[in-house]
Amino acid sequence: MTGQAQIGVTGLAVMGRNLARNLARHGHVVAVHNRTAARTRQLVEEFGHEGEFVPAESAADFVAALQRPRKLVIMVKAGEATDAVIDEFAPLLEPGDVIVDGGNAHFADTRRREAALRERGLHFVGCGISGGEEGALHGPSIMPGGSAASYASLGPLLESIAARVDGEPCCTHIGPDGAGHFVKMVHNGIEYADMQLIAEAYDLLRRVAGYQPGQIAEVFRTWNEGRLDSYLIEITAEVLAHTDAATGRPFVDVVADQAEQKGTGRWTVQIALDLGVPVSGIAEAVFARSLSGHGALREAAQLLPGPKRPELHPDDAAQFADHVEAALYASKIVAYAQGWHQIQAGSQEYGWDIDPGAVAAIWRGGCIIRARFLDEIRAAYAGGEPPVTLLADGTFRDALERAQNAWRHVVATAAQLGVPAPGFSAALAYYDALRAQRLPAALVQGQRDYFGAHTYRRTDREGAFHTLWGGDRSEVGA
Amino acid sequence: MTGQAQIGVTGLAVMGRNLARNLARHGHVVAVHNRTAARTRQLVEEFGHEGEFVPAESAADFVAALQRPRKLVIMVKAGEATDAVIDEFAPLLEPGDVIVDGGNAHFADTRRREAALRERGLHFVGCGISGGEEGALHGPSIMPGGSAASYASLGPLLESIAARVDGEPCCTHIGPDGAGHFVKMVHNGIEYADMQLIAEAYDLLRRVAGYQPGQIAEVFRTWNEGRLDSYLIEITAEVLAHTDAATGRPFVDVVADQAEQKGTGRWTVQIALDLGVPVSGIAEAVFARSLSGHGALREAAQLLPGPKRPELHPDDAAQFADHVEAALYASKIVAYAQGWHQIQAGSQEYGWDIDPGAVAAIWRGGCIIRARFLDEIRAAYAGGEPPVTLLADGTFRDALERAQNAWRHVVATAAQLGVPAPGFSAALAYYDALRAQRLPAALVQGQRDYFGAHTYRRTDREGAFHTLWGGDRSEVGA
Repeated sequence: MTGQAQIGVTGLAVMGRNLARNLARHGHVVAVHNRTAARTRQLVEEFGHEGEFVPAESAADFVAALQRPRKLVIMVKAGEATDAVIDEFAPLLEPGDVIVDGGNAHFADTRRREAALRERGLHFVGCGISGGEEGALHGPSIMPGGSAASYASLGPLLESIAARVDGEPCCTHIGPDGAGHFVKMVHNGIEYADMQLIAEAYDLLRRVAGYQPGQIAEVFRTWNEGRLDSYLIEITAEVLAHTDAATGRPFVDVVADQAEQKGTGRWTVQIALDLGVPVSGIAEAVFARSLSGHGALREAAQLLPGPKRPELHPDDAAQFADHVEAALYASKIVAYAQGWHQIQAGSQEYGWDIDPGAVAAIWRGGCIIRARFLDEIRAAYAGGEPPVTLLADGTFRDALERAQNAWRHVVATAAQLGVPAPGFSAALAYYDALRAQRLPAALVQGQRDYFGAHTYRRTDREGAFHTLWGGDRSEVGA
Repeated sequence: MTGQAQIGVTGLAVMGRNLARNLARHGHVVAVHNRTAARTRQLVEEFGHEGEFVPAESAADFVAALQRPRKLVIMVKAGEATDAVIDEFAPLLEPGDVIVDGGNAHFADTRRREAALRERGLHFVGCGISGGEEGALHGPSIMPGGSAASYASLGPLLESIAARVDGEPCCTHIGPDGAGHFVKMVHNGIEYADMQLIAEAYDLLRRVAGYQPGQIAEVFRTWNEGRLDSYLIEITAEVLAHTDAATGRPFVDVVADQAEQKGTGRWTVQIALDLGVPVSGIAEAVFARSLSGHGALREAAQLLPGPKRPELHPDDAAQFADHVEAALYASKIVAYAQGWHQIQAGSQEYGWDIDPGAVAAIWRGGCIIRARFLDEIRAAYAGGEPPVTLLADGTFRDALERAQNAWRHVVATAAQLGVPAPGFSAALAYYDALRAQRLPAALVQGQRDYFGAHTYRRTDREGAFHTLWGGDRSEVGA
């Protein structure tokens, strides 16, 4: 027995519902199922005119409604709920069927699930989906992992509903098992960093240049016409231009300044630490959010002294704004370079063979960090030998060269005037550390050998060495 | 049957051997055991004159040699080896006996082991031991977790072999289950941060002030007579003053500038992320080490442009060195404040009731970060109401006030001249963020509400709110 639906979606909260509608609107017959059937009925009642839905009240009906090989998309809260749904459906499926997890799962969970289901002859596709509710409905950026065989049947369906840029779908097969969820995680980490950098730019324009939120909105609108053109810059201008109706004050001034951090941003840093990849831009963004939420600490720190602030003249302010634009662009290059480093390190660690340029290509549309900038990253990886780091790509290197004086000026000014710029500073320190001929890590190795006999390597010959610090300070091979 | 030994040590690599010798030298009868018996025999042959050892070749003999309640210290490589040894000995023990793990276990493993052994009526003490080989022999800083009952019998033994400062042993009962290993982990994280800050100070003295390693050694020696007086500053001077015999060059110049990071430093940051505690100083230190090890990245980045460097006059150089001292001291306060924040957050999360002043007290001797500075931290927690953050303690606040101009100058100079100072910069950004009246986190919340309907709170009334960004931009309760 085979059903008529080309694909099914179970879990019809807003993300699942919108994804199902998107599929139906693109001419696919979509089986829909939810733990509580009322939501299934509601979907068909409200949106049944948009396409062809096959509502299923039971798990068995849902599975029976699907064409073989069955393609079943799980859209539930990441974690135990995902395992519960897999356990419910897997016994009803047959070898060759494909289970897709469209939630924000940790890639290690995805690897575990994929291995377990592969044993049973089932394909499991951990699939990152970015773009929020609107993206799910109108075209998300889609990052499916899993087997190449699963992508052969699933890919065309996903590509049909993904965002499109220059005619290309924002969906590609990322790599085996957890590769899709890993890349989605790094996407979110980069998103954290990008948002933090924008927030610092706003703060500097306000506290150093003395601009009001409405003026800063205009500055961001101008920036959005240049190399910073991106969804996040666009919505930042919208948020800053918005006036709170209740008070008549700038909206940004009535919002509590305590941001939330959880899930993927934190995971990105934790996994980067495991991989030995420095992602200071993402880490500072996560820390900035958690710091903002520590009300008692911030209260206690109100008595800490800061510097006196000089006033800027209006023409200085305009010039400073230009410097901030350059600092933002340069810091953004660093944050993305760190993210791509993590993607390539993960790819190597897990044998995923991820195409770094293809990742840039599918993030050009549909997702939160979509931007003109990603064309440049794609181009950087399109040539013969890919750059070891994005910073070394000719286009970015030239941009950094032009930006660096302004970038240094902004970081120095923030430090002098007491405006926190952890993202800008960390990015610049990373840049300067990476290009340093010699790092003081040599001293750290000396210290470690002194107190813990951890040994060191030498610049002039192979091997590990130890100095007898407590003795005659001669050197011995280790 | 009860043996004569007051305590036993199994695992006689250098740390275990030195700990056993330390115990014997303090008049305790020490049973000693190792998987390969040759090492046990060697210990007794070489060091039997130092005290009373009871060598045991089998696990059964080892257990039989111990007085009841038995106290058995495991000194093996953290991880699976620890579980293997526990599995070997636990069946031979009786209710009330105490197993001590003196390795660098992850505190989550310690919690798991403690719970499992508690079920069997055994005490399990996850015990941080700091000070390396020399400390183990001559007096380490000891951080035992576990039950209060276990400390009643074990504590006097540990206190007798710990380092002593002003007559007080550097050993105290930290708290239940994983508390000891947690605190040891944070100790190591702080150690990472402290070493990174010292390395940055050295780098700035060299690259900005133009000092040679021998001159910098003198600067550090002078600093070591003031408020920076500490073991790490002392050994830094020793390392910098050392000349490589093979080449006649400064030792620090022949050491490969690639530091290693693993284990506890990385864990500290990962756990801080779980706890929502910003530990940017520790994170930047871990990242600096991993960055230093990425040879291919650094090679590729050699072509990145930096700024032109002005020459400093000798008197400017001396003044700059004073500024660096202030920056180092201020950044160190921040790194330690972040570490103590993590200790207190962990204590709250796991119900450990850790005394933050007692931790400072036992780190004054024996361990790598031992320093005069810890007296100040102890004093900060000795009063009535403890400070919410160390930064707000009167002594530290005053020091930060005096240091801040120099600190800002050093961070700004590093940025302008292209010398990486990720630790100094991150510390200053943390300081300025914590004392900020308003943070741009409000803008981040606005962005999140815009693209993901994540809602925000308001400054003027309770509740969660959402703006209909895609509609008429009115506000709705969430």
